[in-house]
Amino acid sequence: MSRKLRLMIPGPTPLPPQVSEALARPMVGHRSKGFAELTARLHGKLQQVMQTNNEVIILTSSGTGGLEAAVANTVNPGDKVLALVAGKFGERFRDLARVYGAEVVELHFPWGRPVDLDAVESELRRHPDLKVILATHNETSTGVVHDIRGLGALAAKHGALLAVDAVSGLGGIDLPADAWGVDILVTASQKALMTPPGLAMISLSEKAWAQANKCRAPRYYFSLPAAKKALAKWNTAYTPAVSLFFGLEAALDLMLEEGLAKVFARHRLLARATREGIKALGLELLPPEDVASPVVTAVKSPAGIPAESLRKILADKYGVLFAGGQAELKGKIFRIAHMGYVDQLDVITALGALELALNEIGHRVDFGGGVAAAQRVFQGGAE
Amino acid sequence: MSRKLRLMIPGPTPLPPQVSEALARPMVGHRSKGFAELTARLHGKLQQVMQTNNEVIILTSSGTGGLEAAVANTVNPGDKVLALVAGKFGERFRDLARVYGAEVVELHFPWGRPVDLDAVESELRRHPDLKVILATHNETSTGVVHDIRGLGALAAKHGALLAVDAVSGLGGIDLPADAWGVDILVTASQKALMTPPGLAMISLSEKAWAQANKCRAPRYYFSLPAAKKALAKWNTAYTPAVSLFFGLEAALDLMLEEGLAKVFARHRLLARATREGIKALGLELLPPEDVASPVVTAVKSPAGIPAESLRKILADKYGVLFAGGQAELKGKIFRIAHMGYVDQLDVITALGALELALNEIGHRVDFGGGVAAAQRVFQGGAE
Repeated sequence: MSRKLRLMIPGPTPLPPQVSEALARPMVGHRSKGFAELTARLHGKLQQVMQTNNEVIILTSSGTGGLEAAVANTVNPGDKVLALVAGKFGERFRDLARVYGAEVVELHFPWGRPVDLDAVESELRRHPDLKVILATHNETSTGVVHDIRGLGALAAKHGALLAVDAVSGLGGIDLPADAWGVDILVTASQKALMTPPGLAMISLSEKAWAQANKCRAPRYYFSLPAAKKALAKWNTAYTPAVSLFFGLEAALDLMLEEGLAKVFARHRLLARATREGIKALGLELLPPEDVASPVVTAVKSPAGIPAESLRKILADKYGVLFAGGQAELKGKIFRIAHMGYVDQLDVITALGALELALNEIGHRVDFGGGVAAAQRVFQGGAE
Repeated sequence: MSRKLRLMIPGPTPLPPQVSEALARPMVGHRSKGFAELTARLHGKLQQVMQTNNEVIILTSSGTGGLEAAVANTVNPGDKVLALVAGKFGERFRDLARVYGAEVVELHFPWGRPVDLDAVESELRRHPDLKVILATHNETSTGVVHDIRGLGALAAKHGALLAVDAVSGLGGIDLPADAWGVDILVTASQKALMTPPGLAMISLSEKAWAQANKCRAPRYYFSLPAAKKALAKWNTAYTPAVSLFFGLEAALDLMLEEGLAKVFARHRLLARATREGIKALGLELLPPEDVASPVVTAVKSPAGIPAESLRKILADKYGVLFAGGQAELKGKIFRIAHMGYVDQLDVITALGALELALNEIGHRVDFGGGVAAAQRVFQGGAE
């Protein structure tokens, strides 16, 4: 039998059949009335899922392109920017600010730990000219959710813009962007939004638009004022990834039909079951549980077991793809995503495969021990 | 019956069924061995279709993103650049150079006419410090193919880099990039390459890479050195549009199976038949026939008939999408694309619909007159 592949990585995530079907649709003209209608519908649905009343710009790029748009449209050379770095994606946002000539103040936190708000406030006091805070919502590399609500309050208090990389969390974790004072919100199609990679979404508050309209950094493809002008006619500045637009609408329909509150509760439940399963197997979670991500669980590989060897067995023998650690965590952790089109039996599958692989690599665990712990969580239901 | 849609616009173009099927495939990990193998295969196939031995970088963006990558990686602020402008896409390349702070020398040619090599050489003599020539291969807005071979010779003679926007022509029109001295070649997925929009492809000569490696413009998502480093491991710097990679391979397979020479001959024949049909209906072509594009035919709307009204009948009553004129040509011309997944009967369909619409709008033409002229060309076969 040809290998059944089970994707449990934090993006791309599995596609619902409705999305796959939408992707295969024939092309249409991207300047046609029908496509403008699709763009308008998508806009309304994205505002719901992104929990914002701000205009949502869709860019044909990966999430990194969306992060670049955030920086290129709000950071002038020499502007002072605060980068909160607690993982690989925090580093990426910082690197982008550097590339655009910002004076970057960096605040580092241990990988696997949350951003400390007191430390952030100290920096804001020390540098009253800080213009933008670059934050990560769900740090995919460590499985930690940072306190965006707290950061929003600090940004408002100190008059800085809050830019949030919500690429991997949005749609899986509750993030009321407007209510929490997010000025620049970036996400992408291939994580909890259950669509293939290729689209980034970005929304700006009024304050952020004021900055974008006068920003001097070179930008063309990622020019948000140009995108906004086109959006006024339900158009895009440049040719959009038409098939991904089709797919995204199918995915958003599924999410809105389920209801956002239920989508978020489902992810929390799947994460809790995964964590209980992991602990029942005697393994250790990377982050403290109170900040552990609802969409990806980072697990320390048992002493003496290289995470890459474990992942290789899972991939080669079982077709189960977990993610590895990145940068300083490479070889030390593995990460199980439960993000997007994922249900309880997917968690059972992940834990079942992990139990097999651990025993094969010589790290004895009770068969069914992790699975049972997850099942007990499911029987209990959502908090 | 629900409207049958017939796309005859210069991108997105109709998808072969093999491509549609590929688009609907399940996701895979973009850092997996299988995806690296796909990337390696795609690379070899793209080198064949792009007629280059240079590395080909695939970017997840529209063609405009590819053009921005060309400029952002080879043009430093203050560098003198020669922009050849004879249509909307020539303007776009020029605008990009301006955004990146180049000192732009502009050479304008009437829309619908080819670039004049003597004028280009005069500018190269006048400005011996010109570093890059920005040229358009197939100017989609006017249906003119410019003389890239001639420009390549001039660029080599005067020591400038030749950057070519081949977004709409590549894969439909013979463009031996290496043989003709193209230093920077940009194309995109949604034109003659028969794949949905969302991918841009770019290749650089050794001379262009030397420039890219020391370029000082801010660039991150479109950094070609970063992309090249990733490509060495058959990887991409950022998450690629996985489903479009699947689709692109299916499309390239079809093209290589047909054979590039036959693909080009097919486009030339379809274009000639379209032109003969247009002339038989008493309509006038925009460009002179010796420079008319094999992939898109630009036609002047008959006196007193607004092109937009004609297009509206075609779209609303027949579901046939022609493109309109852009900028200064808006309302004055319409454009029939025969680009990518197109055959003889598609040309017959286009002309048949045009004959109906012209008569309906009150411009009498002989029914079957344009169709017959095209049929006679097909009976004669390729030159």
